[in-house]
Amino acid sequence: MTTYVAPTRDMLFAMNELAGLAAIAALPGNEEATPDLVEAILEEAAKFATEVLAPINAQGDRQGCTCKDGAVTTADGFQAAYGKFVESGWNAMPASPEFGGQGLPSLISTAVLEMWKASNMAFSLCQMLTLGAVAALENHGSDRDKQRYLPKMVSGEWTGTMNLTESQAGSDLSAVRTKAEPEGDHYRITGTKIFITWGEHDMAENIIHMVLARLPDAPEGTKGISLFVVPKFLVNADGSLGRRNDLVCASIEHKMGIHGSPTAVMAFGENEGAIGYLVGEANRGLACMFTMMNHARLNVGLEGVAISERAYQQALGFARERVQSRPIGATSGGPVAIIRHPDVRRMLMNMKARIEAMRALAYFTAAQMDTAHSHPDASERAKHQAMTDLLTPVVKGWCTENALDITSTGIQVHGGVGFIEETGACQHMRDARITTIYEGTTGIQANDLIGRKVARDQGAAVKLLLAEMNDTLAALEAAGDNELKVIAGSLLGGTLALEKSTDWLLATYDQDPASAAAGAVPYLKLFGTVTGGWLMARAALVAMKMLESPDADFYRAKKITARFYAEHVLPEAQVYREAIVSGAGSVLALDETMF
Amino acid sequence: MTTYVAPTRDMLFAMNELAGLAAIAALPGNEEATPDLVEAILEEAAKFATEVLAPINAQGDRQGCTCKDGAVTTADGFQAAYGKFVESGWNAMPASPEFGGQGLPSLISTAVLEMWKASNMAFSLCQMLTLGAVAALENHGSDRDKQRYLPKMVSGEWTGTMNLTESQAGSDLSAVRTKAEPEGDHYRITGTKIFITWGEHDMAENIIHMVLARLPDAPEGTKGISLFVVPKFLVNADGSLGRRNDLVCASIEHKMGIHGSPTAVMAFGENEGAIGYLVGEANRGLACMFTMMNHARLNVGLEGVAISERAYQQALGFARERVQSRPIGATSGGPVAIIRHPDVRRMLMNMKARIEAMRALAYFTAAQMDTAHSHPDASERAKHQAMTDLLTPVVKGWCTENALDITSTGIQVHGGVGFIEETGACQHMRDARITTIYEGTTGIQANDLIGRKVARDQGAAVKLLLAEMNDTLAALEAAGDNELKVIAGSLLGGTLALEKSTDWLLATYDQDPASAAAGAVPYLKLFGTVTGGWLMARAALVAMKMLESPDADFYRAKKITARFYAEHVLPEAQVYREAIVSGAGSVLALDETMF
Repeated sequence: MTTYVAPTRDMLFAMNELAGLAAIAALPGNEEATPDLVEAILEEAAKFATEVLAPINAQGDRQGCTCKDGAVTTADGFQAAYGKFVESGWNAMPASPEFGGQGLPSLISTAVLEMWKASNMAFSLCQMLTLGAVAALENHGSDRDKQRYLPKMVSGEWTGTMNLTESQAGSDLSAVRTKAEPEGDHYRITGTKIFITWGEHDMAENIIHMVLARLPDAPEGTKGISLFVVPKFLVNADGSLGRRNDLVCASIEHKMGIHGSPTAVMAFGENEGAIGYLVGEANRGLACMFTMMNHARLNVGLEGVAISERAYQQALGFARERVQSRPIGATSGGPVAIIRHPDVRRMLMNMKARIEAMRALAYFTAAQMDTAHSHPDASERAKHQAMTDLLTPVVKGWCTENALDITSTGIQVHGGVGFIEETGACQHMRDARITTIYEGTTGIQANDLIGRKVARDQGAAVKLLLAEMNDTLAALEAAGDNELKVIAGSLLGGTLALEKSTDWLLATYDQDPASAAAGAVPYLKLFGTVTGGWLMARAALVAMKMLESPDADFYRAKKITARFYAEHVLPEAQVYREAIVSGAGSVLALDETMF
Repeated sequence: MTTYVAPTRDMLFAMNELAGLAAIAALPGNEEATPDLVEAILEEAAKFATEVLAPINAQGDRQGCTCKDGAVTTADGFQAAYGKFVESGWNAMPASPEFGGQGLPSLISTAVLEMWKASNMAFSLCQMLTLGAVAALENHGSDRDKQRYLPKMVSGEWTGTMNLTESQAGSDLSAVRTKAEPEGDHYRITGTKIFITWGEHDMAENIIHMVLARLPDAPEGTKGISLFVVPKFLVNADGSLGRRNDLVCASIEHKMGIHGSPTAVMAFGENEGAIGYLVGEANRGLACMFTMMNHARLNVGLEGVAISERAYQQALGFARERVQSRPIGATSGGPVAIIRHPDVRRMLMNMKARIEAMRALAYFTAAQMDTAHSHPDASERAKHQAMTDLLTPVVKGWCTENALDITSTGIQVHGGVGFIEETGACQHMRDARITTIYEGTTGIQANDLIGRKVARDQGAAVKLLLAEMNDTLAALEAAGDNELKVIAGSLLGGTLALEKSTDWLLATYDQDPASAAAGAVPYLKLFGTVTGGWLMARAALVAMKMLESPDADFYRAKKITARFYAEHVLPEAQVYREAIVSGAGSVLALDETMF
């Protein structure tokens, strides 16, 4: 069982060189984000991740949670770790200062969140859901509710949840049936929600549920859904806890992974009806939810990065220690550590290259969000908001799909012991398996990408991005370096594939939406593969200038890793292009009975 | 929870049209394999799989096996099912008639084995290991040992195991340390073996272990390993069971999947030494093992096909039943079954197309083996043996690597409930995860492929296969059908990629073995992808002529599925070619410390 060491060197590289931390820190309101502070935060967070969260990760998996009479008990060590987490201020760190957060740029909290997710993904979900609920309340809640709930949710003394899914309403929230009946200043909520992450547990004294439900006179479909805040314990005017609300955890799920995180079936209003308060306008609940969903989607994409990094570290540690067989071609001499075998290196390089590209993409997107939030110029804000919107489904979909492969490769590097649970490699793969599903499946992300993010603005945002890629191509060609030329050739192929596929999509989306949708996931993967390749190419350009620096090894490795990506990963762009541009017919041709 | 229905229609198609069952049945000794008999066997086996093995599959996963004081208890229902399996003669079916088997061609038993593996992979492993031990004894054992063990092993009254791995000797069997000291007509075996599938259990009265060990004077490395037969209970001259041998199951592993199959740590000779008998010549144990390993490798490849089929059936059943969201582009009307959503269709088509190509390849290879075994002409036998040898690592490596993706996609089709263990989709993915590891990892298969199977004969066997592919290309072009033209274009790209990569490998293998090995797994995947594409193209040619037959729907679906493969899967060949021909440098460039 290996531990986790936060890859702060690569995190800082992605923040400084690819996401532009200096520019973010120069935006109004971000004055505190000095390089020293950022390094200090990352160092402290890395320590917490290694010392507090990583050691209980396997225990959480093995022991899981138990539910008895509506009470959920978490695995040994989780309660104590959560106490330390709150006490150290980590829960509050990413939140805005008005209610106790530190108000630091998302780019910084993104690096910190990656550490929580890598060291203990199941644990990290509690904070993620809490911060999502905080965002919804902060943006849409009444002043009374903000004052009542936010300070303790931001601190982490109380946790938050998102209650969206019902058994008949999964990807399709228009089918939500939970009811809200008005009664004075509040509503009575009745209905059953499923898949509620950290819906019930023993780590905090109160749990604040954000619940989607329908008013009695609500129109059908998505335009008749409202958002409510429904606390486990009602909160008195003085902020003290009142009586228990009419909601209960009916059961928890037996899942493939993230065993440390309880996934609850929540029953609201089995007696007199749970008391809830409207958040935002009536029938506009979905719009309120979207506020937090975009954050959550980026965060789940980041989970893909994080769990992949964890799997990589575990595999790398094993490959350095495990001695087996002579090097290829040797006819004498003893066995060597398996990292010296070419196929093991290939697997490790594949993991490493994808992870670095994914991290770059996630951090770059966080920086877009920061600029969209804080730039003084409205047109810059709009431009970066469009880029954030464009990249959010790509980060979510592509980083998580990659994580499935990478965590599986992590097992493969181990050979037979990889399949033994005690080794720890399986847990990462089982944990990763949820990431392409929750907060919207890859298919949902891809439909969002081709529809709202590409077709709606006629490809304007994509074309801005492609123009940036062309600038990088020119810089690569101008550098006069053979390795950068190889990278440029591959990136050119990738950008042309993206351009051609985008043109095809724009021409197809309105008149033949089914054909466009048939290529949606390949388009999302194409987008991630090429954008990741672009960021790796930019990384190689930076690295080329630093090969004589004291940290030369890091930059040499970065340049080689970028070349690996160009030769082994980026060519996938052509497969996706082919599937998008030529493949819709065979996706749709079969009668349903002929499957 | 869905059940399993054997895909006999597609199995018969692959057997008849792609593997050439009629030609196999015409070989000497195969007279019994009439079309009627084959259909009857498949029908009966399908019934057994659905009625007896499939229903206990999930139970085996949930309950697993337990080990107490050296005794292993299997999950509820396994003992009874095994009794029926033996009683019905299914264990004996694939074995040669001399010791009670039916002596049918491998092609037929391959289809039957696919059913066992799909309906209950954990259960099926017991027979697989027994048949492997039977093959080793039959080919290399003394007459005394054959008479003593084989009849009851063939019937299944006794089961067999392969004891190869030790903790320091995984992929590298040269590191085996288990000792064998001569004593009269037998040897005393001492040592500890790990990862012994069905090494101990409660389903049979005796277990016959095939054990690799070293004689006292043995040379180091692989040339000093001998094979021994070591029964759990010694067998008296009259065939009755004697006293317990000095071997014990020390523990069983806690694995990610195949929980129904006990994986034992076996301790030999903790007291006076376990009594074993030499099989074959001293120090030639590895060669004896290879006899059964090739069979076992094909069978594990077949597991990839089988578990993928099971995952596909489960996902398809769900996609037909689960109603969610309007069809894409619709602005009114109700929600529809998700099979009507393009991205779900894409996932199902991807599963279906790969599975059919994998099945075709596995069955085609089984037919090569049958021809190599029974053809009257020695040069034909040699040619087909070379083809069997060439394709064995491809079937093992490519079908199992595909199975990882396909079983994962099976979960994805389910959305959120796919991650819940009770749904059953997770088990298939967890079970599948071992298939790329045991019987030699994908890396080991790939090294075998590029070294012993391609470089050693200077690509002669590959070129024979490429020539057959070119014949198919000509037939596709001559057919005058647009869909077949599309398929031809894609297949041409694939064959050129295979040809070019093979040429590169042949030029590189001797002088730069590390670079060749860096591309070994991509080459294996390229080989499988293209050969699968060739077989799908042949299937489309057959289908084109049958579109007016009473079974027209099957052939229409086959032709469309072949086109899907050509458009969505076969283009991957270019990614592999790029990785092989251009990518070795970046695999090998990084210093070990720079990972």
